[in-house]
Amino acid sequence: MTPRNPLNIGAVARAVSNFGFESLRLVDPYRVAMDEARSAPGAGAILAAAREFATVAEAVADCGLVVGTASMDLRESRMPLDRLEDAAPFIRGTPGDVALLFGSEKYGLSNDDISFCHRLVRIPTRPEHGSMNLGQAVAVCLYELIREPGSFPPAIRRQAPAEQLDRLADGWHAVLTQAEYAQMPTTMHKIRRLLRRLQLSPKDAQAVQGMVRQVLWKLGSKLS
Amino acid sequence: MTPRNPLNIGAVARAVSNFGFESLRLVDPYRVAMDEARSAPGAGAILAAAREFATVAEAVADCGLVVGTASMDLRESRMPLDRLEDAAPFIRGTPGDVALLFGSEKYGLSNDDISFCHRLVRIPTRPEHGSMNLGQAVAVCLYELIREPGSFPPAIRRQAPAEQLDRLADGWHAVLTQAEYAQMPTTMHKIRRLLRRLQLSPKDAQAVQGMVRQVLWKLGSKLS
Repeated sequence: MTPRNPLNIGAVARAVSNFGFESLRLVDPYRVAMDEARSAPGAGAILAAAREFATVAEAVADCGLVVGTASMDLRESRMPLDRLEDAAPFIRGTPGDVALLFGSEKYGLSNDDISFCHRLVRIPTRPEHGSMNLGQAVAVCLYELIREPGSFPPAIRRQAPAEQLDRLADGWHAVLTQAEYAQMPTTMHKIRRLLRRLQLSPKDAQAVQGMVRQVLWKLGSKLS
Repeated sequence: MTPRNPLNIGAVARAVSNFGFESLRLVDPYRVAMDEARSAPGAGAILAAAREFATVAEAVADCGLVVGTASMDLRESRMPLDRLEDAAPFIRGTPGDVALLFGSEKYGLSNDDISFCHRLVRIPTRPEHGSMNLGQAVAVCLYELIREPGSFPPAIRRQAPAEQLDRLADGWHAVLTQAEYAQMPTTMHKIRRLLRRLQLSPKDAQAVQGMVRQVLWKLGSKLS
């Protein structure tokens, strides 16, 4: 990449570190931006080890696969162009070193940059607003490369809206206060979490609310 | 979310727009940061329509499912906690409005925030450096929600490294120049792209290089 903004360089390095990648290479970065980024607090090991190259050709010289990344539509480049999620298994399955190539913040990949790529991937942003922030684009691409879906139990019936649960939590809390049990705010948090774990339907929530109201009335009458 | 930095608010809004979502709600944002973000050039429709709320409870009142997002490990919260990629089908399959709740840049989700969540998702960052930049975390979560893997042909044999392809491109270009065909830089780009589309193995690349060398020699001898 050919970054110009130290904040962007820092954000890119952070994503590289977050997702467990190691190697960041910069092509002809603005001297001032690079020095500023390297000296930023928390810049960390990735930036310290980042290598700078004068040209894209040199930066990717030892890579067997170079994948250009874009959030805009680059179909006119007449290169193999895939959605990021479709290309990820291919990228992961390629032996040897693979380079992901990002363009500059302002202009993206140039035709010259693209000529060093074997293929292009596009982050599936919407056509009307395709262009992503550089640090965000890097984060999304690296996330896609490390993601590993497991299994997840299928969903789900309709849930009571949050305001209904909160009314219920209030009622419940009033009950516990009356019963001299409640310690705010811990108890309130416990109740809210419990109600959400229960995955109440609107109808069930209404039924429980009725019970709570009844208990409150009873407690009130006992106490009075 | 309770954002404090106008650049972060802008980055979040950009990701919301990039991935085709519409509704951004902010909880008690810093007045100055919000005003600055709204007036930034290109802030766009998402920020203009962003609604502000005093509390998390009000912000999520009409939502049937509230998913807290974290890049740190929150297992101690004793809430259902899933990797983002595992939770995505569940989130997409939930009828009605779903809220993704992000914490502040500095502290993430508080215990009070978490008590309004039905479940938590964790972006699978590496444990040694889990904490993500807010704008990047939002981009990754929204990307996961809209991603749609299609089919992709399986890979692949070993590829010639880029420097070998570039030597080959240089040779090829020299041939075309000798043949009075080449127009720089268009032709050079065409050659580089063609060589990458071919997915040459190192051995094949070497073989073609030999041919090119031979042609060059022949052209030279004809021209001389």
